[in-house]
Amino acid sequence: MPRASLKEQIIVAAVETLHRKGFNGSSVQDITDAAKVPKGSFYNHFESKEALAVEALDRYWQRVLGSLDMLSDEKTPPVERLRRYFRHLGGIARQGDYRLGCLIGNMSAEMPDQSRLVRERLAILLAAWSRAIESCVRQAQADGSARRDLEAKTVAAFLLNAWEGAVMRSKVERDAAPFAAFEQVVFTLLAPSRGAADAGAPE
Amino acid sequence: MPRASLKEQIIVAAVETLHRKGFNGSSVQDITDAAKVPKGSFYNHFESKEALAVEALDRYWQRVLGSLDMLSDEKTPPVERLRRYFRHLGGIARQGDYRLGCLIGNMSAEMPDQSRLVRERLAILLAAWSRAIESCVRQAQADGSARRDLEAKTVAAFLLNAWEGAVMRSKVERDAAPFAAFEQVVFTLLAPSRGAADAGAPE
Repeated sequence: MPRASLKEQIIVAAVETLHRKGFNGSSVQDITDAAKVPKGSFYNHFESKEALAVEALDRYWQRVLGSLDMLSDEKTPPVERLRRYFRHLGGIARQGDYRLGCLIGNMSAEMPDQSRLVRERLAILLAAWSRAIESCVRQAQADGSARRDLEAKTVAAFLLNAWEGAVMRSKVERDAAPFAAFEQVVFTLLAPSRGAADAGAPE
Repeated sequence: MPRASLKEQIIVAAVETLHRKGFNGSSVQDITDAAKVPKGSFYNHFESKEALAVEALDRYWQRVLGSLDMLSDEKTPPVERLRRYFRHLGGIARQGDYRLGCLIGNMSAEMPDQSRLVRERLAILLAAWSRAIESCVRQAQADGSARRDLEAKTVAAFLLNAWEGAVMRSKVERDAAPFAAFEQVVFTLLAPSRGAADAGAPE
């Protein structure tokens, strides 16, 4: 199926190009050049650059999904899963020399006012990401390793947003300091306070 | 001095245009059109669009500076200053229907890998912003209204990054939920734990 393969080449190139240069910084030509396909073939497969951006986000999301398993790994205590998960994401940022950031975060900063299509997809992906974190936070609260005086859903949304902010800052600083601050603050603050009535964790 | 006035018109238009459309989404022509000046006059005043972006960031920073006074208002307890400050920022986002985000955050997501000039200015502005928050966090720790088991500097960097992440998310959601989660989580977690040895606040 050569047609499917051409479309696939364009999507793969779009994830890489949009991640590196942003939506407005990438022309259709940049993407078809990166895909090594004729520019003319683009509109046989995609209605618009916006429609491609949505497909690129969905493809990027498959990568996010791949790591989300870490959050439901029952062999690891839930707070430790959260810690490992964010360390894992920080490691990916480091591999890219802190240059790329998160495609979902980058698009969230650049696109919502420009494209309803992209904005709505971002909302769906961020909600799904938040739910995966929420489930792990809830388990940490249940086993007493995280404080219980906040709703897991609120904590999860906060953590995801705070993480995306740390990723953004790491692009500016070109180092891991924002991730170190995230880890130190989040895991110190989430720990149940000693002797607090709501904690329930053995010390 | 008509030349100064032309330059001024361009800077004012650039802040507005770059904030709304991003760096790569704004052409020099978009900016000179918004400034109602001839496109040809642009390069009399600015070496490049990058150089203008730095001036636009500096101008935007004057607005940020204007609100930073809230953090050193001695009539208000320091934790309350922090709460009011972030509420104030959330109010500005609401006024813009959550469409614009923060120019500094937007540029942090879009520009670091594209422009060293812009990246270095962002680092300077974010560091100054962080220091203003740090000073207020330190005062809150000193008067016992914030927990003391984290360095004020680390907490401040974390808060600023987490806030920028919340702003980014509010663009996607078009609502204040990310700010509500920020406020609820941050001020619950920063409160000294009851009876903790490091707290020192009267209950």
